[in-house]
Amino acid sequence: MADDISRFLEEDIGDGDITTNAVIGDQKAVGAVKAGSACTVAGLAEAEEVFSDMGLRVKILAKDGSTVEPGTVVMRVEGSAKAMLTSERLALNFIMLMSGIATATDTLVKRARAVNPNIRIAGTRKTTPGFRRYEKKAIILGGGDPHRFRLDDQILIKDNHLKMVGSVTEAVRRAKRFSFSKKVEVEAETLAQAEEAAKAGADSILLDNMSPEKVAEAYSIIKAVHSHITVEVSGGIRPENIAQYAKNADVISVGYITHSAPAADFSMDIEEARGQ
Amino acid sequence: MADDISRFLEEDIGDGDITTNAVIGDQKAVGAVKAGSACTVAGLAEAEEVFSDMGLRVKILAKDGSTVEPGTVVMRVEGSAKAMLTSERLALNFIMLMSGIATATDTLVKRARAVNPNIRIAGTRKTTPGFRRYEKKAIILGGGDPHRFRLDDQILIKDNHLKMVGSVTEAVRRAKRFSFSKKVEVEAETLAQAEEAAKAGADSILLDNMSPEKVAEAYSIIKAVHSHITVEVSGGIRPENIAQYAKNADVISVGYITHSAPAADFSMDIEEARGQ
Amino acid sequence: MADDISRFLEEDIGDGDITTNAVIGDQKAVGAVKAGSACTVAGLAEAEEVFSDMGLRVKILAKDGSTVEPGTVVMRVEGSAKAMLTSERLALNFIMLMSGIATATDTLVKRARAVNPNIRIAGTRKTTPGFRRYEKKAIILGGGDPHRFRLDDQILIKDNHLKMVGSVTEAVRRAKRFSFSKKVEVEAETLAQAEEAAKAGADSILLDNMSPEKVAEAYSIIKAVHSHITVEVSGGIRPENIAQYAKNADVISVGYITHSAPAADFSMDIEEARGQ
Amino acid sequence: MADDISRFLEEDIGDGDITTNAVIGDQKAVGAVKAGSACTVAGLAEAEEVFSDMGLRVKILAKDGSTVEPGTVVMRVEGSAKAMLTSERLALNFIMLMSGIATATDTLVKRARAVNPNIRIAGTRKTTPGFRRYEKKAIILGGGDPHRFRLDDQILIKDNHLKMVGSVTEAVRRAKRFSFSKKVEVEAETLAQAEEAAKAGADSILLDNMSPEKVAEAYSIIKAVHSHITVEVSGGIRPENIAQYAKNADVISVGYITHSAPAADFSMDIEEARGQ
Amino acid sequence: MADDISRFLEEDIGDGDITTNAVIGDQKAVGAVKAGSACTVAGLAEAEEVFSDMGLRVKILAKDGSTVEPGTVVMRVEGSAKAMLTSERLALNFIMLMSGIATATDTLVKRARAVNPNIRIAGTRKTTPGFRRYEKKAIILGGGDPHRFRLDDQILIKDNHLKMVGSVTEAVRRAKRFSFSKKVEVEAETLAQAEEAAKAGADSILLDNMSPEKVAEAYSIIKAVHSHITVEVSGGIRPENIAQYAKNADVISVGYITHSAPAADFSMDIEEARGQ
Amino acid sequence: MADDISRFLEEDIGDGDITTNAVIGDQKAVGAVKAGSACTVAGLAEAEEVFSDMGLRVKILAKDGSTVEPGTVVMRVEGSAKAMLTSERLALNFIMLMSGIATATDTLVKRARAVNPNIRIAGTRKTTPGFRRYEKKAIILGGGDPHRFRLDDQILIKDNHLKMVGSVTEAVRRAKRFSFSKKVEVEAETLAQAEEAAKAGADSILLDNMSPEKVAEAYSIIKAVHSHITVEVSGGIRPENIAQYAKNADVISVGYITHSAPAADFSMDIEEARGQ
Repeated sequence: MADDISRFLEEDIGDGDITTNAVIGDQKAVGAVKAGSACTVAGLAEAEEVFSDMGLRVKILAKDGSTVEPGTVVMRVEGSAKAMLTSERLALNFIMLMSGIATATDTLVKRARAVNPNIRIAGTRKTTPGFRRYEKKAIILGGGDPHRFRLDDQILIKDNHLKMVGSVTEAVRRAKRFSFSKKVEVEAETLAQAEEAAKAGADSILLDNMSPEKVAEAYSIIKAVHSHITVEVSGGIRPENIAQYAKNADVISVGYITHSAPAADFSMDIEEARGQ
Repeated sequence: MADDISRFLEEDIGDGDITTNAVIGDQKAVGAVKAGSACTVAGLAEAEEVFSDMGLRVKILAKDGSTVEPGTVVMRVEGSAKAMLTSERLALNFIMLMSGIATATDTLVKRARAVNPNIRIAGTRKTTPGFRRYEKKAIILGGGDPHRFRLDDQILIKDNHLKMVGSVTEAVRRAKRFSFSKKVEVEAETLAQAEEAAKAGADSILLDNMSPEKVAEAYSIIKAVHSHITVEVSGGIRPENIAQYAKNADVISVGYITHSAPAADFSMDIEEARGQ
Repeated sequence: MADDISRFLEEDIGDGDITTNAVIGDQKAVGAVKAGSACTVAGLAEAEEVFSDMGLRVKILAKDGSTVEPGTVVMRVEGSAKAMLTSERLALNFIMLMSGIATATDTLVKRARAVNPNIRIAGTRKTTPGFRRYEKKAIILGGGDPHRFRLDDQILIKDNHLKMVGSVTEAVRRAKRFSFSKKVEVEAETLAQAEEAAKAGADSILLDNMSPEKVAEAYSIIKAVHSHITVEVSGGIRPENIAQYAKNADVISVGYITHSAPAADFSMDIEEARGQ
Repeated sequence: MADDISRFLEEDIGDGDITTNAVIGDQKAVGAVKAGSACTVAGLAEAEEVFSDMGLRVKILAKDGSTVEPGTVVMRVEGSAKAMLTSERLALNFIMLMSGIATATDTLVKRARAVNPNIRIAGTRKTTPGFRRYEKKAIILGGGDPHRFRLDDQILIKDNHLKMVGSVTEAVRRAKRFSFSKKVEVEAETLAQAEEAAKAGADSILLDNMSPEKVAEAYSIIKAVHSHITVEVSGGIRPENIAQYAKNADVISVGYITHSAPAADFSMDIEEARGQ
Repeated sequence: MADDISRFLEEDIGDGDITTNAVIGDQKAVGAVKAGSACTVAGLAEAEEVFSDMGLRVKILAKDGSTVEPGTVVMRVEGSAKAMLTSERLALNFIMLMSGIATATDTLVKRARAVNPNIRIAGTRKTTPGFRRYEKKAIILGGGDPHRFRLDDQILIKDNHLKMVGSVTEAVRRAKRFSFSKKVEVEAETLAQAEEAAKAGADSILLDNMSPEKVAEAYSIIKAVHSHITVEVSGGIRPENIAQYAKNADVISVGYITHSAPAADFSMDIEEARGQ
Repeated sequence: MADDISRFLEEDIGDGDITTNAVIGDQKAVGAVKAGSACTVAGLAEAEEVFSDMGLRVKILAKDGSTVEPGTVVMRVEGSAKAMLTSERLALNFIMLMSGIATATDTLVKRARAVNPNIRIAGTRKTTPGFRRYEKKAIILGGGDPHRFRLDDQILIKDNHLKMVGSVTEAVRRAKRFSFSKKVEVEAETLAQAEEAAKAGADSILLDNMSPEKVAEAYSIIKAVHSHITVEVSGGIRPENIAQYAKNADVISVGYITHSAPAADFSMDIEEARGQ
């Protein structure tokens, strides 16, 4: 993380915060990071690291992953006013973006678990290049499952792979020969594909872009082959319709929590420290 | 950009795309990147670089910055099926995220220019750490102005700076002494501050969180001091209310186009190349 | 790989091959890389990249993974004598070390498959820091399975983990809750542990440091719980005793093929190119 | 070293030790690194740095370069169980591989010094790419001399150089003109070459692949020209025959101590820390 | 800065200070850095960082930017003799080179301000590749202005740009459209160009290679258009003639203070620490 | 070199050449790099690489190391006007600084060789941090010898080392024990030290800060011990007095050619390419 943060600081600062260098002296300051709206907060650990790297003392006042109300002060920072003003933006960007993701995830988790308490809500690889580890962490803080961080995490045979191979059974056979230590998941767009994948020995099956009814049917077919096969459902699932899918799935994966969740609103008020 | 892309590929791929390595042979393929919804497209140059770095031939079929309809094929890729499947996600992530930003910017630009044809819509530094240059580029492709990339681009004295210095006039004086080659902008929350900044010699004044009426008043006061001072307006401006602000501003800056714009929808269909 | 190779060249060359720079002019040369002993050759692709990066033309005359006799010329290189002499050592180091590993692996694979044609011989993480990807590749070229490249590849609960958790069942439960996309393997030192792990839902069980008889017994116990559980055997297995273990294992993993396999013998003869 | 270690940790860990993260809590532990066989131990300093970088407290109980018996605990580590389990493998890989090299070197040094107390045993550049500095250090800990780390350390004119230049005398002349601060060594395969190199002003002469008798003859010829010329002997020298060479050499260099020495056996036992 | 310093140390040290490693034991030492000639000292902060990174204790005895007499001890260092000898050269190189620049700048500042107390002396981008930030800092310590660090700091339309565009007015128009946050400066070689640039709205005008008389005339013309336009003068200005230019300029920029200023003379005396 | 150049370009350009981006279109241009004063030219290879990396075609019209007259066009560049303007400064900085060093070296070489045709003029480690390899190369192009690039090149026992060890003989003994492949040089400030070093077996002796007469005396004493010992002379030697030292030295080393040589004068004229 330290490497990332120094790279991110450099991206934001360049050769120096010329405003702060020009107008601020050696004053000490106290800064308060405050939520502007209700949200599941995330990114506090990252913001703390940003400020600590700048030599500031940080007190975290809310737990990453907890829910906060508008106006809540989630962090207090103390030390050089220059350092604080120079690093404020990066710290806030971490909190705003990660809290946005955590909040969107939390909403889905709550709606889905109301129907199926054992279900997992998972992310996808539709993340911002270079920022995935923080977006995946925000999903976890929102109660979700990160799913694959990288293409070497698990074998997941998708429609484009199947078009190339021609046969679900052959694709699964190749995958199982390739490695004994990785799980094999197959994306199925039809009931027939789902059944074929289950029989070929897939560890998990991803039902993509099916209606809730079709998902229910596929779920029964798969579990009949082997009760231990994991059933994942994906494609156009939003808070509005997640309850319809949740009963017949072990995992629901959703791209929009990383690529389209609006940021949460946070700001920092800085005041000169008195009597120090 | 080359450095970023190899870093981003590594983030997504890790030690290898084990699915593709396990199930795909040395086939050739053709891939088509298609828009799923109407948008201002961006990120095609980045996607092209991704695919080219993987040894694929790319034909771009839509211009970055142009508007595309749902179903439009914006890019066609040809070459090794393995390379294509391995790099598909990163290429799509560039296009989806950058097109989302370009689309949100374009909407604002059109609404504001209907009222004031000379106005600029600008971004902020509320961007994803490590991905700013692409987000700023997407703003430009959407017709906007990137504003500061980094803290060394321009002097911008904000409320937190003013709290430390105590006086607008003194802050401007320090800023102008610091550098003869950088513009000095001052954030004003009141009419008095705006006027003081103008008289102190600020090159630009940022009116923050004012009502449209107050902006109109501030605009007159500032331009009366010096007609060449740039007036920027910011704070809670969205497509719904931008027309009310646009008449009395040279620049309107908006954070949500980078931190909260939903991604555009793009996918890639890959088919085996025949007759090659 | 390109990054590694430039780093490795720098390690070997420093600020320049002062011998070559001092005594060699702009001559052209032809170099032949020759095996000094029979072996399963590996590292030719890496050696080719080394020489190509130096601007030399390379013809590979043996296939990585094939068996070669003493005296076989496996590669011919052509171009600047300076470039060839400067990069010779790194190219040879790749071939010598990787061929040593491939040869040791191949020997084990042949002996084990004589008994059990479906068995896999796998490596471990007992590799040279910084060189693992090449050592794992050499295992694959020798007919083996790389096993985990990294600690995030698969969950493998070892004796030290079990000491901390206290219970096999609880450890497996935690592991399965942690991730739905990773396999869970448990190291068992007793029959009771093996059975407990199988019943708790482990995907694979590693029998560590057991006699062939005990392995046979454990194998039956595990397969009785679930026929699909993978049985891996490890601990002091060498060419001499591998046949005794091979019948009752799906995978045999061996550390010495990476940490103690002697290098194969290769050298390069360089001659001035005439008539060019 | 710090850079290497963080790179090596990343190679081994990837995005996280998922086993440890899944099953271990915030327990404290004590770990003991134990030798499995008699050896000259090396790599303790590197292992200490690995563990320290992970925030663990380390007590080293044997001196790098000393001889240890089977069962000796060479290091004790204390702190977070998670950190210990995550970094155990890299620390052990350093100790196992470096101790293997130190042990092989020590054996040669002892046998050669029994005959010639002033002789040096030196390594070669036949090392693992990226790990040379640790392999050279292990040679030194085993009582040997590292010889060239890199091609810019010393001029060493080998057979391939001589084929290009055509004349020993001319090669030495060019080398001495090139630099006044580097020693010039010449590899000789015949007595005539050895004598020519000595007369041309070489600082050292490397007798390659000669029988012990021929080495004795060459040694006399060289020392007759200048008593201060260093005589190095190389080529197929092993513990079995080193005594025959040792009398007529200032330095004996041996490739197998880095490329083929078997690793020493070390393991780590971790137990939960009580009463802390 | 930390990154630079470790890179610079590596450049100077390579694989180790073999002299110090060979001949020095674990002694403690005290070192005194002394000026050999009168100068404006700079680089002490960098030298301190070098020594601190090596684990040494540093006491700075002169202020960066102050004037020192020959023989002045500007810094005292204490700790490991090995560390001190290994890092001495880099620390001295910082001080010698930066003090040379600060001294040359200070001389110009004093001569110019005798004529015009408000004038700024600025550097150029004629700096040593990779060392610019330190050279610019030395200019500031000598009382000067750094001018552009990089091409993205400010728009500066030079003769080569004007040749391409064809018209000063058009070039300024394009520049102002490009960005609202950057100043626009134009290089003028004639009075007509200067006037055209002023009228087109340039923020600053650089008079290049004009005689003092022509500068005076241009200055009047420009200030008549707008009193707030900054007038910069450049081209062949040295201590001998700066007074002639200083009256009619806001800024004088000079390349030789970075590319041709002789280094100041500093050395370090190291003595064994007694009684510690 | 490629790494350096992309780092140097980034230092100069930052996020983009905003002037060129703002005012220049897709024109083609031709640029001519011209000498402003007579000098020994160097840095053309580096400038060529800079321009080539930007996609420009380069024709080199003078040989690095040759002498050029004022007005000589040393290089012609062709291609995108944008690329040319963006990279012009870095290319010129290489040529100006390296030619300054080559010119200063050449002057010394000519004066010293008039007296002693076999003498070498050598540089020191008093170079600009991060730019040493280019400064050393410029010395070589000026006819000089680079001397140590790094502290691991050769053992050079200086006054500060001797203060720590206490005895010249003991220091040489330790140095020779440390390594058989590195030369050992000793800095002597008195005749007695010079003689002691020679007798102790030093390969070279550096006479520091002695008068020409004392150098002559030391030279005789040293050569009487061993005619093959290299005598290097250093300390305050300039073009004015070098002839007095040159007769009694094998090498004269001079710091000012890197730390204080004024840059040579070069500029680039760019014109729009017609008829292409």
